[in-house]
Amino acid sequence: MSRIQRDIIVREVGLRDGLQIHPTFMPTTDKLAWIQNEAQAGVPEIEVTSFVPPKLIPQFADASEVCQGALEIQDLVVSALIPNLKGAQRGIELGVKKLNYVVSVSKTHNLKNVRRERDASIEDFKAIVNLIKTLPLEQRPFIGAGLSTALGCSYEGKIALSEVVLCAEQLLDAGADEIVVCDTVGYADPALVRAVMKAVLAVAGHVPVAAHFHDTRGTGLANVTAALDCGIKYFDASLGGLGGCPFAPGASGNIVMEDLCFMLDAMGLKTGVNLDLLLKTRETMSKSLSDLKLHGALARAGLPNGYVSTLQAQEA
Amino acid sequence: MSRIQRDIIVREVGLRDGLQIHPTFMPTTDKLAWIQNEAQAGVPEIEVTSFVPPKLIPQFADASEVCQGALEIQDLVVSALIPNLKGAQRGIELGVKKLNYVVSVSKTHNLKNVRRERDASIEDFKAIVNLIKTLPLEQRPFIGAGLSTALGCSYEGKIALSEVVLCAEQLLDAGADEIVVCDTVGYADPALVRAVMKAVLAVAGHVPVAAHFHDTRGTGLANVTAALDCGIKYFDASLGGLGGCPFAPGASGNIVMEDLCFMLDAMGLKTGVNLDLLLKTRETMSKSLSDLKLHGALARAGLPNGYVSTLQAQEA
Repeated sequence: MSRIQRDIIVREVGLRDGLQIHPTFMPTTDKLAWIQNEAQAGVPEIEVTSFVPPKLIPQFADASEVCQGALEIQDLVVSALIPNLKGAQRGIELGVKKLNYVVSVSKTHNLKNVRRERDASIEDFKAIVNLIKTLPLEQRPFIGAGLSTALGCSYEGKIALSEVVLCAEQLLDAGADEIVVCDTVGYADPALVRAVMKAVLAVAGHVPVAAHFHDTRGTGLANVTAALDCGIKYFDASLGGLGGCPFAPGASGNIVMEDLCFMLDAMGLKTGVNLDLLLKTRETMSKSLSDLKLHGALARAGLPNGYVSTLQAQEA
Repeated sequence: MSRIQRDIIVREVGLRDGLQIHPTFMPTTDKLAWIQNEAQAGVPEIEVTSFVPPKLIPQFADASEVCQGALEIQDLVVSALIPNLKGAQRGIELGVKKLNYVVSVSKTHNLKNVRRERDASIEDFKAIVNLIKTLPLEQRPFIGAGLSTALGCSYEGKIALSEVVLCAEQLLDAGADEIVVCDTVGYADPALVRAVMKAVLAVAGHVPVAAHFHDTRGTGLANVTAALDCGIKYFDASLGGLGGCPFAPGASGNIVMEDLCFMLDAMGLKTGVNLDLLLKTRETMSKSLSDLKLHGALARAGLPNGYVSTLQAQEA
């Protein structure tokens, strides 16, 4: 079998960003089936859980089991959200090879979200990187740093570009292996995306920059288009657009993985994802919980008639 | 009162493209209230009806009354779809100042849609332009020519760019005042949009080129972003994304007017549309028929906190 070619790396975040606000516990076996099926469909990286204390978010009570199960899947990059140093320690002990940490550029949002000043959160990140540096090289996980509310904040509204760049620099100086620009509340538009991505790319140097968009106001894939123009190659998304926003009932969540993969594929950009298998994964996953509200246009409309995917074109 | 500034012209097509597949008749007074409210919200152009025979589409049995009512609204560009010469005559008699004609680039689609060969449809267009030329200058309507299925066809799949350009040239030679590139079945992606728009703009010269996108597979606003990059300034959309596709139950229709206007406005592009009034228009319209299925993210999520629109910024 030939090695899968990918121009763009799509990353599933629904098991974390989608399920974290979902009131019903998804059984661990269903989470693992979701991960297994989506990996099989060709999604190369999945954020499988969060090491937030189960007291705060009971959905993640099975974080260890989910990680252990996911880590058995060949060639899948398994990542997990770590809220603090303790989370990093758990991730390292479990052998998770990619840990994702998040700081809100909006100081108000950071305070409300994790009850810490933004500077304190950046100090925490430094402590996490220092812990990682004590490990033998081959045991060190990749450490991603997300800039939450980088494109707008429901408390502060617009976020100054200088603050985004400052946070990015602080996280890069601390040793981030990746910067993720996050539109946490779905305020972004393509013009803002271009401005922010250009500024972050300018300071990131060789460190990869990823995009994490929400589709709260319908601009998700338009923002992807703008980010692609800037040269961004890493995109977070969630199957069925799980996610939503606790402050906007019924609103869409993360950009829809199926729609994202279709758009990229139609543009001739290889994601390595088999769209049919991805749609099947959605279907299976949707049966797991009766109160899941899925979004997404491709699942309703189906692929264009006679559509030839980049995967099929490669095989032909 | 200062004259409204507009960088982009958005055009409502829901009363025609949205309602034409809707099984329930929307009362004429409700149609006129929709038009009135949306014009008041600042939408500068509305395709109010189609002169298709009511035997074929009963929804348009009130075409004359709707036109007459709409034509009383100050500063609104009232347009109507004309399927043929007879439709053009009706539009001219009613004093409609903009007539929209459509040819499918896909020969199969044209045959299935209007039971005529594509070349015959182009001949019909020539006859319509010739009729218009017999009128005194001040009575001549503006005649738009739509290229249906220019970005893909549910019968033929991909459409050759050379065919799109050929049709555009034929319609321009015949005397079209505007070319509308239509993604009739929602197959387009941003890369294809760029290729097609560039090619059509190259032959259109000084004749304006507009975009008519559907959001069937979620790529609608991403395609708008790509078209904006090409310099397109005219966009069709429908309130609540009315439209759908008879072959894809539940699928989205035209791009959502509210989401389009929000995205453009957030990008700093003036549309002249008051977003609050537009959302109110949607709400009122949605009560007209109980079986309408509306789409759209902005209506669910609301405007960003502290959002200042370009209209408000202008007034400040």
